[in-house]
Parts: sequence; structure tokens; C-alpha cells
Amino acid sequence: LESRLPGVGTTIFTVMSRLAQECGAINLSQGFPDFNAEDLLFERVAHWMRAGHNQYAPMAGCLPLREAVAAKVETLYGTRYDVESEITITAGATQALFTAVTACVRPGDEVIVFEPVYDSYIPAIELAGGTPVRLQLAAPDYRPDWAAVAAAITPRTRMIMINTPHNPTATIWTRADLDRLAALTRNTGIVVVADEVYEHIVFDGATHASCAAHPELADRSFVVSSFGKTYHITGWKVGTIVAPRELMTEFRKVHQFNVFTVNTPVQLALADYMADASRHLGLAAFYQAKRDFFRDALAGSRFELLPSRGTYFQLARYTAISDLGDVAFCQYLTREVGVAAIPVSAFFADSRDDRIVRFCFAKNEATLAAACERLLRV
Amino acid sequence: LESRLPGVGTTIFTVMSRLAQECGAINLSQGFPDFNAEDLLFERVAHWMRAGHNQYAPMAGCLPLREAVAAKVETLYGTRYDVESEITITAGATQALFTAVTACVRPGDEVIVFEPVYDSYIPAIELAGGTPVRLQLAAPDYRPDWAAVAAAITPRTRMIMINTPHNPTATIWTRADLDRLAALTRNTGIVVVADEVYEHIVFDGATHASCAAHPELADRSFVVSSFGKTYHITGWKVGTIVAPRELMTEFRKVHQFNVFTVNTPVQLALADYMADASRHLGLAAFYQAKRDFFRDALAGSRFELLPSRGTYFQLARYTAISDLGDVAFCQYLTREVGVAAIPVSAFFADSRDDRIVRFCFAKNEATLAAACERLLRV
Ligand SMILES: CSCCC(=O)C(=O)O
Ligand SMILES: CSCCC(=O)C(=O)O
Repeated sequence: LESRLPGVGTTIFTVMSRLAQECGAINLSQGFPDFNAEDLLFERVAHWMRAGHNQYAPMAGCLPLREAVAAKVETLYGTRYDVESEITITAGATQALFTAVTACVRPGDEVIVFEPVYDSYIPAIELAGGTPVRLQLAAPDYRPDWAAVAAAITPRTRMIMINTPHNPTATIWTRADLDRLAALTRNTGIVVVADEVYEHIVFDGATHASCAAHPELADRSFVVSSFGKTYHITGWKVGTIVAPRELMTEFRKVHQFNVFTVNTPVQLALADYMADASRHLGLAAFYQAKRDFFRDALAGSRFELLPSRGTYFQLARYTAISDLGDVAFCQYLTREVGVAAIPVSAFFADSRDDRIVRFCFAKNEATLAAACERLLRV
Repeated sequence: LESRLPGVGTTIFTVMSRLAQECGAINLSQGFPDFNAEDLLFERVAHWMRAGHNQYAPMAGCLPLREAVAAKVETLYGTRYDVESEITITAGATQALFTAVTACVRPGDEVIVFEPVYDSYIPAIELAGGTPVRLQLAAPDYRPDWAAVAAAITPRTRMIMINTPHNPTATIWTRADLDRLAALTRNTGIVVVADEVYEHIVFDGATHASCAAHPELADRSFVVSSFGKTYHITGWKVGTIVAPRELMTEFRKVHQFNVFTVNTPVQLALADYMADASRHLGLAAFYQAKRDFFRDALAGSRFELLPSRGTYFQLARYTAISDLGDVAFCQYLTREVGVAAIPVSAFFADSRDDRIVRFCFAKNEATLAAACERLLRV
């Protein structure tokens, strides 16, 4: 069997988490909390299971959850998405992204992505027969170069995939960035896929600039969210995607034959849980405290900390410590220092190595303190 | 945006369930139980949630569940699949099928399917750029014509998709059928995808002939199972796929970028639940009683009942009742008689209409009795 993805191995997140486990290292690599979600959420799942809501949800998702999502998006971003035709519940944000690409991209189409790029985007594009067009974001600010974007757009450009707040760089785009994107894609037929899974995790008083909040972009964007990131349940694999009706119609044609639906009692529990908006609105302050704790604890180390403006990630340059490549350095960190991290070269198709690693600070302070104690010694 | 699936509407199961709900009809259309699973299963999910197992599962699935699946498959089918490299937990059987097709089929490849065919197969093939090659199974026995299969195989045949026990026809293939399939695919490089989601629901003392039990086919087959069908939790969307290592490697390359993983506490609960094999071994007798009840209750009706040898479906010819097409007849049944069914033409690309409808008997006896009372009146 000839591989359809010959260059692809196992995702870096699996590789590093496995190595962390083998070595008994503190795992700051793959992004997930080491604290639990609230019992109330579990009680709601148990309630709906016992009440007998265990059969297929409607294909688009359970109505109460779609209604809760519509209300949240309208409150925060000012756009009213139609519950029937413009909101779909997905088996995680990754499935939403994969399905959006599969639904829109045809052989020969070009899709613009920004590197460092989340590792699922390019395989999705390639499986659809599309050609990824990679634009570079450079440390330490990782700002988009709008002239380069303009130059990359061709008549074959079908889609632009963006991610804000950005994994792994922890940068955020502004409303002005979205205005530039809107201007460049005006009257082109280009679809925007906006991966906004860290939408509630922006720091220092900044506001998340959502494509769903942009009067022009909202009309040509898929906007992807994640309950896993927001409610500390990355292992439940539930996300949402919103888009104007014409785009969502195409999305659902594929979605129904890919996963069809998502866990029913979990959806109903999430609908209940969303009723209290403080649960997502409180997230920024919650993670900002962790960011500050982590950065303070690393202040005396020889890592150079880049800005972290959103997400639960912190980039660190290690050139003062070692001249290993970042993959080797992460192996050394995991094996010898006892702290696992992600090499940022894994987010570049050509493995470009800026000697920067990514730490996840979605951890209890005790975990962060223990990790920093080890990192201070290197 | 030019549709990638221009001929595709909303899946018939969603259409009929929605109509059933609108009309307050008894829903024997989409296949799902109207009784609940056991509390014990829910308690196990609640346990693992409270115990803090809510973050990403390993990409291939939680180890205890993969071990339980390996043990079950070895016990029932005699083949030992490697837990590390040959078993993956999926977001339902549909996702397993979609991902297997996406991982193996390239533009220009041909994929043989048998009509009536489950409605997700052909869109998956077309999205991968493959060409579906449709062979017909004909009422009332829906037996494969092996000479036609031999004639359909070309150097471009990449895959054959089979389904036993078969939805919607309720027929099953025998070991002799698998021997024919094995002989025809010997030394061809053809991959078999075996949709065996009703593996535990075979009647009248028959044995399920699994590709996983076939010494030759097991080496070139993906075999797909469903916890939803087996444990009365169709809405949880968890399935499994097993395959030899070389095939599974390709499957996982796509799987990790499609859904990545599946709900962690649900996986751990299912591992606990599988410990008692009577839970899946008892399914055949459980559903045979329902089949017999349903058939007996319809005996005085003007429907002609076809054989039901497996699955939880019953086909019925209605030519003695009406000369409507089957779509119109199902609408009439739902609207006027108060019982929803699936038109079998929905399983044919050319909507071939044999005036046969499908009823789901995965229902409480009271539901079946009420439905039959209505159906006797037509
Ligand atoms: C798919 S597991 C990885 C989780 C994540 O998004 C990350 O660590 O960047
Ligand atoms: C995808 S919902 C349909 C369930 C099912 O498999 C059927 O009714 O045939």
C-alpha cells in the first residue's frame, strides 16, 4: 500500500507525552491541564445518561447545546448564527478543521497557512488534494507579513487557515489584522478557517479578535471552538464550528459521513454547564495567574522567555543553555532534566529550528514549581 | 463554493427521524434502541470522570480498552491483534470507515461496494478521489454474485467494502463467501474493509463470519466494530478498527489529524464493561426475541416480510398495500399511519426502488406492539 501521507509520522504530541511517561518526567509538552474539571459537569453527564439520553444526537448536535453556543457567540462577538443551519457540534476542534478542509478544498486548490503551523492542517490539505502555501511567522513576535500574504494569493487560493490565539507562539491577532485579511480576501471566494480554540485565554486585558466578530470576515469564515480547552476536558473531544449557511451546508455533507454525531449525554451536560458564563469568562484571569507564576519561577533560569499573550503555552529560547537542535534538546530535557517540552521545529514543514521550545503551563502551581525547580538547574 | 459532494443531501436517517418527530410517529426508521443501557455502565463513566481521567487519551485509544478488544477478538475470532500497533479506538464506526477509505484510496483508485450500500461509503470514496464500482445484491436473498465480483476487479481496484451482518437487508455472509472473497483478492494488493458493526446480532444459531476470523483475509482487512450497536449506546459514538500493522500505520496517520482521540472516561468505562462477555454474547438471543415478536405481530398484515438473519432490521415489501414509490410510501407511513421506516431506495445510487422498506426492531415490546397495531390497519 502506497502511503497517502508518506512524510507523516506520529504526531509530536503523542511522541513527547509517551517519552515523558517512559521517563517519569513532568509533562509540559502536550497541551492539557493536570487538574480536574468541576464535579458539577460530571454530575450533568451522569444525569443525562441515567435519564436515557444515550442514542444518536441530531446530526448537527443537540439543540440545547447549539442554542447555548449561539447565545455565547452573539453575546461575545455580536453575530447571530442560526441554530438550525449555521452551528455544528464536532468531535473536537481537530475534526472540525479536518472536515472543513475536506468539504472545501479540491485537487489543485491552494491553501495558505502560517508557520509555525499546528500539525494537523497540512495533512488535511494534502489528503484533499490541495497544495499548502506556507508563509512564515518569525520569532519573537511572529507577526504576519501582509505584503507576503497579498503576494501569496492567486486565483487558485481556496482557503486561508488562521489561528488566534496562536499555538505554539502564544501570540494573538488584532482587529487590525482581521481588517487586513478581510481586505485581501474581498471578492475572491476565499474561505477563511479560523482556529480559535484558545479564544477565552487572552492576557493583559486584551480582547480576542474573532472572525465571528468581524462584520465582513464572518460571512466567509468557519470559526472553530473547543470545549476541551475551555472547560479542562481535553479528553472529551467536543468542539463547535460556526459558519454562514452556504459554508455549513457543505461542511455537514462531509461531517455526517465522517463522524455523523457527537456523544449525546456529554452535549446535554455541556449545554447545562454553559448557562453560567463566568465559567468561560473567568478563564483568562485563571490562566494569566498561571502564566505569571510560571514566568516568575523561571526568571532566574537561563531560558529566554518570549511573550505569552494568549493560549496556555510559553515559548522559551535555550541558546544560552545548549547548542543541541530543538528535538534533541527536548529529549535531553525530558530524559535528563525531567521536564518534557515540545520542539517548535515540529510546527515547520522544513523543520526550521530556531532553538525554541514550548512549555504548557495549564498545570497546578505545585507542578509548575517542581518543573521550574528542575529547569533552573540546567 | 463548488460542492465537493454535489449529489449529496442530508442523510436519510436524519431526514426520517426528523419527520417522525414532527409527526409524533413511532420511529422505526433510524437504527437505535428505545431502551436504556445498564446503570453500571454509567457508573463506570462517572467513576472515571470523578477520578480525573478527562484529558487526551493516547491517540490509538486507552490501553485497557485496546486490551479488552484484543482479548474479545482473539476469543471469538481466533486472531491475536497487537495492542500497540493493530487496534485503534474510533469516534464511532462511521469515522473508522471514513478514515480507512481516506487513508488508502487515491484519485483514480476503484472501490467495489455492494448495493444496497450504507450511505456513508460512497461519499467517503468520492472525497478521496476514488471511483465507486457498484455491484447489485437483489431481493429477497441479496446474495453476492461472485462472477460479477471477479469481473469487476481491475488493476485499479484498491479496496472492497463489505458489510456483514448487512444493513439494510439483514442478510449475513458465510465463511464460504469469505473464502470466495479471499480467492478473488489473493495477490492483488486489494484492501478489504469489513463493516461488522452488527457482529453480535446473528440469529437462528448462525455464526458471524468475521474477516478477523479468516486466516487469509485477516491479513488484508480492516475490521470495524461498534460499541453503540452492542451496548445500546448509539449516541456515544465509539467504535473500534483492527487491521494488520502496515494497514493500521496508514490508518493512524489520518486518524490522528481527523479526530486524534476519543472520549477518555467513556473508553475506560467500556473497558470495565467488556470484562463480562455475556454482555455481548447475549445480544443475539436478546434481538432474536424482538425479531420474532415483531414478525409475529406483523403476521396478519399485508406486508411481505423478507428473511431477517442478523442486525436489528426487518425488510418488508408493501406492494400488496400501495403502489407509491418507497420514499412516498415511507412519508405516508410516517404521516398517516404513525410509523416511520426507511425507504431502501436510499441505499442505491440510482434510487432503484424495489418497493421495500426497512423497520428497526431495536425497541421495547410495547413500542413494537403499538407500531404493529398501526401497521396492521394499512
Ligand atoms: C492533539 S494533542 C495536542 C494538544 C495540543 O493542541 C497541543 O499540545 O498543541
Ligand atoms: C448514522 S444514523 C443511522 C443509524 C444506522 O446505522 C441506520 O439506521 O442504518
